[in-house]
Amino acid sequence: MNVEVINTGTELLLGNVTNTHLTFLGQELFPLGLRIDRQVCVPDGPAIREALADAFPRADVVLVTGGLGPTSDDLTRDIAAELLGLPLVDDPAILDHLRAYFERIKRPMQPSIARQAQVPRGAAVIDNHHGTAPGLYLPPTALAGGGWSPHVFLLPGPPRELRPMFSKQVAPMLAELLPQEGPRRECRIYRAVGIGESQVEALVGPALTAMDGLEIGYCARIGEVDLRCIGTADLLDRVEAVVLPALGSYLLASGGESLEAAVVRQLRHSGQTLSVAESCTGGLLANRLTNVPGASNVFVAGLTTYTDRAKAALLGVDAGLLAKEGAVSAPVAAAMATGALLATKSHFSLATTGEAGPESGGGRPVGTLFIALAAAGGGEPVVEDYCFPMDRPGFKQRASQLALDLLRRHLQAKA
Amino acid sequence: MNVEVINTGTELLLGNVTNTHLTFLGQELFPLGLRIDRQVCVPDGPAIREALADAFPRADVVLVTGGLGPTSDDLTRDIAAELLGLPLVDDPAILDHLRAYFERIKRPMQPSIARQAQVPRGAAVIDNHHGTAPGLYLPPTALAGGGWSPHVFLLPGPPRELRPMFSKQVAPMLAELLPQEGPRRECRIYRAVGIGESQVEALVGPALTAMDGLEIGYCARIGEVDLRCIGTADLLDRVEAVVLPALGSYLLASGGESLEAAVVRQLRHSGQTLSVAESCTGGLLANRLTNVPGASNVFVAGLTTYTDRAKAALLGVDAGLLAKEGAVSAPVAAAMATGALLATKSHFSLATTGEAGPESGGGRPVGTLFIALAAAGGGEPVVEDYCFPMDRPGFKQRASQLALDLLRRHLQAKA
Repeated sequence: MNVEVINTGTELLLGNVTNTHLTFLGQELFPLGLRIDRQVCVPDGPAIREALADAFPRADVVLVTGGLGPTSDDLTRDIAAELLGLPLVDDPAILDHLRAYFERIKRPMQPSIARQAQVPRGAAVIDNHHGTAPGLYLPPTALAGGGWSPHVFLLPGPPRELRPMFSKQVAPMLAELLPQEGPRRECRIYRAVGIGESQVEALVGPALTAMDGLEIGYCARIGEVDLRCIGTADLLDRVEAVVLPALGSYLLASGGESLEAAVVRQLRHSGQTLSVAESCTGGLLANRLTNVPGASNVFVAGLTTYTDRAKAALLGVDAGLLAKEGAVSAPVAAAMATGALLATKSHFSLATTGEAGPESGGGRPVGTLFIALAAAGGGEPVVEDYCFPMDRPGFKQRASQLALDLLRRHLQAKA
Repeated sequence: MNVEVINTGTELLLGNVTNTHLTFLGQELFPLGLRIDRQVCVPDGPAIREALADAFPRADVVLVTGGLGPTSDDLTRDIAAELLGLPLVDDPAILDHLRAYFERIKRPMQPSIARQAQVPRGAAVIDNHHGTAPGLYLPPTALAGGGWSPHVFLLPGPPRELRPMFSKQVAPMLAELLPQEGPRRECRIYRAVGIGESQVEALVGPALTAMDGLEIGYCARIGEVDLRCIGTADLLDRVEAVVLPALGSYLLASGGESLEAAVVRQLRHSGQTLSVAESCTGGLLANRLTNVPGASNVFVAGLTTYTDRAKAALLGVDAGLLAKEGAVSAPVAAAMATGALLATKSHFSLATTGEAGPESGGGRPVGTLFIALAAAGGGEPVVEDYCFPMDRPGFKQRASQLALDLLRRHLQAKA
């Protein structure tokens, strides 16, 4: 099965918006036994026609995103209909849906909206429960005039409309249209923290490359490396027997779980709670933890203290210590962690302080980082120091990664 | 000039990793007078060869990302050399650089790393100051054997290596190789908050589509719409005269500034400070604000209070009020905002409380949201309530957007 994705949108190529559709569609297709063989992004305009005409002869499934909306640069529906020689027909049920939608959100319905009720003849309408533009399914019969035979889906561009439409409507259609054949292949991701990509390969590569039928890949990100293994369930059990002992405590749980989800899971398991005291990570630690469903069972509070005064008032950090050591220092990191424990009565606290840049405020070089972990009744906080001069969001990400991993290792050692 | 981008990486097509290179490269190329005409993503393997062979006859510039690393799935360098019939030659200067790099980060250098010192004959090496794999530039002369003439750049996959390499090394090379011709076209982005895409077009579309030589586009995201205009500076001044009065207070400052950057800028201008008290946004408000360079001038502290006890202890919210009204309520939102003002002594505070889901904890439907804005000496906080049932990250984003916009409008009205 050859699956191709065409993302339309000048904003994607100008870099005004990041294409998150590919990520989402790739993840959704794999459990259906389908993989994206090729993805292309073209601007709104005639290039859409070229991309469709390129993909139609090669592909079994073509997923097109964007360009179904009401504005003048929304051209996908018209271009596809024209290329396939299909007239556009008004669909009264869609018009009713559009009118009801605008009544519900209490905004006026502009005349241009009605374009979205046009459907190429022979297409099936896929209702949009989160916006106005319906999706469209063009079966191979609709394309037969051009000598093509893929299943074509035209999907809306906004992620919050596309995602539920794909998961709840398109995925079941694909499962029925293209039932899986042959032994089912699974994808397992092993995520390692605190180790480099080439070290991971040195530890597991020789044993894994010797396994017939196994597909492996490596992907390095800030503060973590993914090892991706695709194969049958039997083969992946043999992989597991190699990977778990070889990567040991570097390894998060399998399944591509995020570091924050691993920490939340460990804390729920042990019935313990966490607070965070953030300076340089500026709320990112709390934000990552609260992205995990169920975080409210373990996360008590986050105190983002961005000034010396806030560190003193909210965390009880001694003003003399701040003056003597500077806010970016090991003693202040420790005092922040201790203060968070006292203020929130949680079992654990993590603290971060550093110079995120672009300019250094406190005399320490940009990239300087201190992280601290305190445990209730656990004596002096553990403090680690690092230096990672990088861009501001990268530094925040790296610092939050190191802090979460410090707690993860602690919980793992106690488990 | 035809510019094509080829992103290699099975992880991108499986959805394990989001392709942020396109966003970055699109933004970097525009000021050079270059735009990406087509982007394609292919898995690690023979599809890289097809993608290169597709692009070479069409393109003036081909930017390839990924597949230059040390692991067995890093194939771009070998495939490009083979397609072009260029032998790979060891480069001793790169080997020295690699050895020095591993000494500096105090990790062992695996033998596989040495692959990265191989260079196709005729290629220029682009030093990597943030990692191990150097970039490679293949001039049209290196491709001439195949009858092709684009400038080809092979760039490393990790964003923190690619980004500085492109900005500091590749962009200046492109500027010299392909000097701009004709009148310079600029891109202006107008970002509107609190208004829908079709409403924006109804307000400005008729006047803008009448302007010859102007390229316009619309892009809707959670809680905001971008209007993108590309044209000469003269034309864009005429655009501005239409857009500013038509969109009025819906409009952020031009230039695609983020809402959080607009708020930080307004506060710096007025010399005032802000704190946030977050429940359902879980640190996202603080995280967005502290992503803005210079946030430390205006952002005092963020209190993410995820339990009733934390709301009482850290923000002084009355336990009786919490019991009577529930944590997700207008009076609690107001009390959180007031508590943050008192605890942090800032000029303003924003508070959020709501049901992010996936499950409702407090009896209110998932999607319920209250936001509050308090001003020092400004009397009772302003409270707004909404209901946006959406996925957890989407709800957090929408809630943070509404809260920041509440303050933005307040500051704008006072200015």
